[in-house]
Amino acid sequence: MRKGLTKDTSSDINLRDDVNEQLQKLEEEVRRYRKLLEVSASFQSEMDIDQLLPLIIKRATESVKAEKCMVYIYNPDKGVLWTKLKGNAHTVMIPHNQGIIGWVFNNNKPYIVADVYSDSHFDPSVDAKVDFKAKAVAVFPLCNRRGKPIAVFEAINRVGGGEFQSEEVKFLMMVAHQIGIAIENALLYTELLSTFESFIDVMAFTIDAKHPISRGHSRRVALYAKGIAREFGLSDDTVEKIHWAGLLHDYGKISVPDSILQKAGKLDDEEYEQIKRHALMTYRILSRIHFSRYMRDIPLIASEHHERWDGKGYPFGKKDEQIPLGARIIAIADVFDALTSFREYHSPMTFAEAREEILSERGKMFDPRVVDAFIRYYDKELDPYKLRQTLWKSMGK
Amino acid sequence: MRKGLTKDTSSDINLRDDVNEQLQKLEEEVRRYRKLLEVSASFQSEMDIDQLLPLIIKRATESVKAEKCMVYIYNPDKGVLWTKLKGNAHTVMIPHNQGIIGWVFNNNKPYIVADVYSDSHFDPSVDAKVDFKAKAVAVFPLCNRRGKPIAVFEAINRVGGGEFQSEEVKFLMMVAHQIGIAIENALLYTELLSTFESFIDVMAFTIDAKHPISRGHSRRVALYAKGIAREFGLSDDTVEKIHWAGLLHDYGKISVPDSILQKAGKLDDEEYEQIKRHALMTYRILSRIHFSRYMRDIPLIASEHHERWDGKGYPFGKKDEQIPLGARIIAIADVFDALTSFREYHSPMTFAEAREEILSERGKMFDPRVVDAFIRYYDKELDPYKLRQTLWKSMGK
Repeated sequence: MRKGLTKDTSSDINLRDDVNEQLQKLEEEVRRYRKLLEVSASFQSEMDIDQLLPLIIKRATESVKAEKCMVYIYNPDKGVLWTKLKGNAHTVMIPHNQGIIGWVFNNNKPYIVADVYSDSHFDPSVDAKVDFKAKAVAVFPLCNRRGKPIAVFEAINRVGGGEFQSEEVKFLMMVAHQIGIAIENALLYTELLSTFESFIDVMAFTIDAKHPISRGHSRRVALYAKGIAREFGLSDDTVEKIHWAGLLHDYGKISVPDSILQKAGKLDDEEYEQIKRHALMTYRILSRIHFSRYMRDIPLIASEHHERWDGKGYPFGKKDEQIPLGARIIAIADVFDALTSFREYHSPMTFAEAREEILSERGKMFDPRVVDAFIRYYDKELDPYKLRQTLWKSMGK
Repeated sequence: MRKGLTKDTSSDINLRDDVNEQLQKLEEEVRRYRKLLEVSASFQSEMDIDQLLPLIIKRATESVKAEKCMVYIYNPDKGVLWTKLKGNAHTVMIPHNQGIIGWVFNNNKPYIVADVYSDSHFDPSVDAKVDFKAKAVAVFPLCNRRGKPIAVFEAINRVGGGEFQSEEVKFLMMVAHQIGIAIENALLYTELLSTFESFIDVMAFTIDAKHPISRGHSRRVALYAKGIAREFGLSDDTVEKIHWAGLLHDYGKISVPDSILQKAGKLDDEEYEQIKRHALMTYRILSRIHFSRYMRDIPLIASEHHERWDGKGYPFGKKDEQIPLGARIIAIADVFDALTSFREYHSPMTFAEAREEILSERGKMFDPRVVDAFIRYYDKELDPYKLRQTLWKSMGK
């Protein structure tokens, strides 16, 4: 380009115009790319779809030349495209074959239009649902790794009026691509997490099926352990982990013969030894599960709930801080539920009696600080009326 | 800028030089951003870390001004940073505290150096391991969502010689950021998949613990079902799904009392009804698991393995194509293993006898086309010598 420069003034000025225009275009392009990278980085850091969706809508609206951006996610079970308005306050559902949104989803093609009200695919009831009057829109399918649509991205009303321009559409497509990746990852993560939770739920259910008289024991122990752990001041993640360990703590009973587990009379020494083996079996079986790094101590927490603070427990006779904190918490939750439930060998105590019983083992069977947390939790949450509400809620899910 | 234009020729030329330089810089920047987006899109489509790693190394090396790029992933169990050379052929491990790679990982800071051989952190043994002589390097930590290093990215030997320039380093950092996201997602996905598989493994183990005489039954049925499904010509994904359903097909037995399940003599009608309930219980229990969309029919496939092609099976008396194909496959695998194993009520048949037994039920108990696939699979894989090898392999994992 420099070679072609001429001394002639008028063509010089034309050249300057050209060059300036080119500079401006490139600067605009660089600005867009920077924005795109910044926006995309902010999406990648969020895996919870309920948090991600409003974040995407907010950041996309800030970055493109449109009054508002919307993202609709496909729910294959209900056959609808859904979004949330004003954070998480209000969910909007659109049948997957309705309006421009539905057309884009079903045809897996972008749709750019200057005035939706003169467009045959437009469905004005969507405007009513999202409480926003659209005119010009640019709508794009968001695809998963295999190129199948999983959501729809819509830019509504070009800032400055008129139809979205070709450069703007190109940029919107790049934004849409990044949003698609972020949504797919979040959906995948959410789905795998549900799978994880449901497996633990089935394992808790399995123990119930094995030992019907203690039905619901694993769930109640998990609930109590969660309450004590929270009262103890542990982090949300750790509380959740102890909850899971609580659900699984008796899993080793799967290997104890029915005849022993369900025996109404007193167990002989041999039978008692077999029962005691369940703690070790819980450890052995749970160790086969590939827990992620952070949850890797679940087998230990779940299986050492029969160790005692004074070292007289089983299977190892560990004492005080040698026993994982989670196991010391589950130990109290376990005994509290055993005392207050029907069993083959005793009638249930009242909650208040069981509270005294736990207190009397402070520093003997149980870690004194965990007993203190239990008492605080009991006094706040475990009086029978509050408990009934809590249990109903936890069973209903 | 146009305002300041002057007629003076020499300053005009200076201006043209300035403008041209600016244009070139912007063009270069746009080129880089385009490349970055393209490279990053290619990373996002791969979730298998063993496929992703060589892809990253290849695409990154094409995109930056370096002779070679390397990525080292942290393995927290072994305390090493590992990579693979030449696709998947050769794994290199570096202790996490060794050399420049280790320094960058531990300090979570980039490290740019013109000549590594005069650098105090450099460890020449790494060069020997990767069979590549480094001079100038730019090394960056790759972080997860929480900002913790999970891997290291290294650009080796600037093309054109000398130290990596500040613009290049900026670009390398952006590339590193995208690589970090892709690696974290792949690791997360791989981890959750392992978790999923290990839960199914524990459930299969649980059935064994409940009914010791049939130990290994679930695994063998899963193995046979996989072989038949593959011979039937099903896709890899479907074969895998049938394998999982095979592992879980007897899970409902968890609700049958030991005394009935392990009874050596003939069952009375009531007891037989209780045994038959296990098929329905398999369905009920597995339905509690949140399987991903593609795997959602596992409960059905697993639970209908006692339905018969001629409609005389249980629990529903479904017939022919009403029964899911996967269940028709597991039905044959289940009977073949029952016939060839010790049970409370019979001694095992030889494999050849069981083959004839299956064949005699073609079109009666079993789908004729599935029987044909079973026979082909049997003749290829199930003669005793081959089978022993296969079982050893599958048990050894």
